[in-house]
Amino acid sequence: MNTSESNDRRVYGIHSAMSMLRGSPRRIHRVLLAEGFHGDRLQRIREEALRLKVRVSTVPRSTLDRLARGATHQGVVLETVVAEAKSEQEFEKAFENWENPLILAMDGVLDPRNLGACLRVAEGAGVDAVLIGKNRTAPLSDVVHRTSTGALESVFLVQVSNLARRLDWLKERGCWVTGSESELGSTSSYLQTDFTSPTVLVVGGEEKGLRQLTRTKCDLLVSIPMYGTVESLNVAVAAGILLYEVRRQRGATVEGSDSLD
Amino acid sequence: MNTSESNDRRVYGIHSAMSMLRGSPRRIHRVLLAEGFHGDRLQRIREEALRLKVRVSTVPRSTLDRLARGATHQGVVLETVVAEAKSEQEFEKAFENWENPLILAMDGVLDPRNLGACLRVAEGAGVDAVLIGKNRTAPLSDVVHRTSTGALESVFLVQVSNLARRLDWLKERGCWVTGSESELGSTSSYLQTDFTSPTVLVVGGEEKGLRQLTRTKCDLLVSIPMYGTVESLNVAVAAGILLYEVRRQRGATVEGSDSLD
Repeated sequence: MNTSESNDRRVYGIHSAMSMLRGSPRRIHRVLLAEGFHGDRLQRIREEALRLKVRVSTVPRSTLDRLARGATHQGVVLETVVAEAKSEQEFEKAFENWENPLILAMDGVLDPRNLGACLRVAEGAGVDAVLIGKNRTAPLSDVVHRTSTGALESVFLVQVSNLARRLDWLKERGCWVTGSESELGSTSSYLQTDFTSPTVLVVGGEEKGLRQLTRTKCDLLVSIPMYGTVESLNVAVAAGILLYEVRRQRGATVEGSDSLD
Repeated sequence: MNTSESNDRRVYGIHSAMSMLRGSPRRIHRVLLAEGFHGDRLQRIREEALRLKVRVSTVPRSTLDRLARGATHQGVVLETVVAEAKSEQEFEKAFENWENPLILAMDGVLDPRNLGACLRVAEGAGVDAVLIGKNRTAPLSDVVHRTSTGALESVFLVQVSNLARRLDWLKERGCWVTGSESELGSTSSYLQTDFTSPTVLVVGGEEKGLRQLTRTKCDLLVSIPMYGTVESLNVAVAAGILLYEVRRQRGATVEGSDSLD
């Protein structure tokens, strides 16, 4: 159970940092520079990172020493992620080939275990893609990788810079955007919803659920009835119930293969 | 994320240990005694614990010092659990009043987070009871409490000394015992299963699934079709999908109240 976000992989040193910035910038979660750093090469790393919209923080040199565990870091440590998400261009291209899309969008899932568990069930339910925001999402760390049981690598995962705009894009292309809410109030039960058309299912984060902007982009809001005293379900459990209801409605059969669309 | 099984609450000292053994033995996960202990009172604690079928271990005195964090332990530390499960007698009595029972049984769920998540969704789905084994189950620790979001206290939780025998008991009383397996092979899809009769749903542990003995007690084995490359779902996610399918078949409606049986 010794898992936390600090299990993110790290890359140290000027040369390695610059290589990664050039080659796989989307695998960089954050660039850490020593406070009061000087030197052209560190400055260039900083500028390149900002140009690529990669987060940059300055931290005490002692922090870098600790993170590098004795390795020579030359004033720079990169926090990297295990997997590289697909680009929005790749997503738009792939989207054309999906007959009856089923997409899971996550709005602010910050706990890496929950993110991993969502990826696992999304992949298991055979979604075409999973969308996560660039911000307000747990980094794609080892913890996510482990709890996803490999789905982090096998699912079509897209980091979108603006989820609300992407939902609009999907609606324009015939998708129904269904948001999952934890209160029944103004929403209807997921069992009353027709999921046989192209569907984008949007689930919210652990604490706050869907953001107001995201909520306004949904064609409808549904909830899972609660029969006891707990107020809501874990986000991955809720995603599983909803995604498998989509599958059921679309005619999943035992032997499976003929229902894999 | 600073959570592990070591968050179990602890009780130190001879007087406190004896009080708890007399008052709430089922809240004791384990009695730890100092190696080579002597004295009548510690001997009496040991005998009382064994009589009550509470686990007893002897450990180096230094371990007790560490666990008690400087407090005076007098050679005995109890590892306790947050919640007290119901007894089998209480279960048998309550069972008589359930019209169309829905029971979740867990066979070897060892991860406290998974146990907590299962309790959360079981309570949310309105099960009548959750059965867990006395052995091969995560202790009812703070972690379980937290991940259950309170369901640990509100669900009818029963620790059974022999799960296989209890499943026989339930079958004799008209319940269908349905085991959840991760491979489709010789099992059928959960969607082909009629859950409208009294149902006991049995889910297995993280690594090994259902034990062979448990499997032989099931009237039928079902699985959730997997449409991607991951081999199985998280146990709480699987439990959620299955329990909410039971609810769907039993006629959950939006407004809810008229479907609460």
